[in-house]
Amino acid sequence: MKRPVFLVSDRTGITVEMLVHTLLTQFEGTEFERINCPFVDNTEKVAAVVEQINRAAEHGDGRPLVFSSLVDPVLREQASRCTGVFFDLFDAFIAPLETELGVQSTQSVGRSHGMGVYATYKARIDAVNFVLANDDGASTRHYPDADIILIGVSRSGKTPTCLYLALHYGILAANYPLAEGDLNTDNLPKSLVPYRDKLFGLTIDPGRLQQIRTERRPNSPYASAEICRFEVQAAKAMYQREHIPFLDTSSVSIEEIATTIIQIADLQRRI
Amino acid sequence: MKRPVFLVSDRTGITVEMLVHTLLTQFEGTEFERINCPFVDNTEKVAAVVEQINRAAEHGDGRPLVFSSLVDPVLREQASRCTGVFFDLFDAFIAPLETELGVQSTQSVGRSHGMGVYATYKARIDAVNFVLANDDGASTRHYPDADIILIGVSRSGKTPTCLYLALHYGILAANYPLAEGDLNTDNLPKSLVPYRDKLFGLTIDPGRLQQIRTERRPNSPYASAEICRFEVQAAKAMYQREHIPFLDTSSVSIEEIATTIIQIADLQRRI
Repeated sequence: MKRPVFLVSDRTGITVEMLVHTLLTQFEGTEFERINCPFVDNTEKVAAVVEQINRAAEHGDGRPLVFSSLVDPVLREQASRCTGVFFDLFDAFIAPLETELGVQSTQSVGRSHGMGVYATYKARIDAVNFVLANDDGASTRHYPDADIILIGVSRSGKTPTCLYLALHYGILAANYPLAEGDLNTDNLPKSLVPYRDKLFGLTIDPGRLQQIRTERRPNSPYASAEICRFEVQAAKAMYQREHIPFLDTSSVSIEEIATTIIQIADLQRRI
Repeated sequence: MKRPVFLVSDRTGITVEMLVHTLLTQFEGTEFERINCPFVDNTEKVAAVVEQINRAAEHGDGRPLVFSSLVDPVLREQASRCTGVFFDLFDAFIAPLETELGVQSTQSVGRSHGMGVYATYKARIDAVNFVLANDDGASTRHYPDADIILIGVSRSGKTPTCLYLALHYGILAANYPLAEGDLNTDNLPKSLVPYRDKLFGLTIDPGRLQQIRTERRPNSPYASAEICRFEVQAAKAMYQREHIPFLDTSSVSIEEIATTIIQIADLQRRI
């Protein structure tokens, strides 16, 4: 038996999705079935969702939980008349905020995305293009423009982290792979020297690295326990010797890696 | 005068950040200054944040708003004793959820990220690698594995959308640029024919396209009003003729484009 959970939003529903994810992980023993209902922005669509909730309620898996981030008061009222347990993100916070700020909220749908987002859109696109043009040491020409340059051995998570920083924060993130030649000396790679202050190291558990590399190129020297161990140790030694801040990516999500880097490197978000 | 808003979290703070963004955009006339406080996970860090909030309260910009997604009850209690207006995401929802579900929440930090995320991590990395290997028509070899193939004229938003789908949902998204040769005929590009069911078109306002292309290559034919208009019209005609679902990306955010595509194309999230 899985308790049905409806996520009702007038836009993408990403906010309510994240909140519900955080909340429900607090209830370990209970199984949930999530039903996403994004773009519910008129009375017909609300009616259809209410009907779906009411049907689920009759189905016998327990009273549905309904999380709503609907903004329009008429639609909220209509949705709240379903037979599920109704959790209203707006009720919970908007009313007390109105009291505290001494103003009425505008209660208009889609303010947080909508138009006027061109600057944001452009910052993101520019940042994504920057990542792609400067991925994997492809070019060091644009390093003067970079907000940060991630370094690390192959498959330590540099590219996805750069892309996350670009898409979410508009940060111009380059990355440079530490290859054998870089790891066999006691010097910082030449092309990185002028940008020492922008460097941030990624490290990873050698066993995890081996697992990732084996999935990519099974039985290659590249994926051997020995090479993985050597590369990780040499990279870490470089970070410590050169006083480069670094982070272990083995057991954290990309969101956490990105947020931690922003904090440690004190990066300014462009979005 | 900007009203200070503190975002206090024991992990990345992304959930509380999205929620606060949505909430505060409902208060148009009021200016806010957001202070992110992620990774606040022990009493010392809470004490430091409380001190910062109390200092801001004395500064005269109005009583600080404090949004907390702290999970640990001891830390929450400690934080709530600051002089700001305290909004507690957990109080608002966890207590009623406990009542409804008839169980206690586990109240442990970081459940929503942390370990056990290797499967997620791998799905994301694989999806990002898929996007990069299949970006901009670079290769059509992997199209049989694609969950979706975005098509559209150059600079219509294909790559960032593919990356967003990959990073957030683990979706294998390829993209194929509609070039002049594709747009001058009445046929679907040959390499796309076998994958007709996976195609999804992006379209864009020609003026917006011109703006984006001009920033990239000023005064080129590529960025001329005429070429932009022709390409957009021809692409849209192709979508309609071939019954390919499509979406106008001009005034929506990447989140919205991605969520809409998932809904229309009925894609399964891999994360």
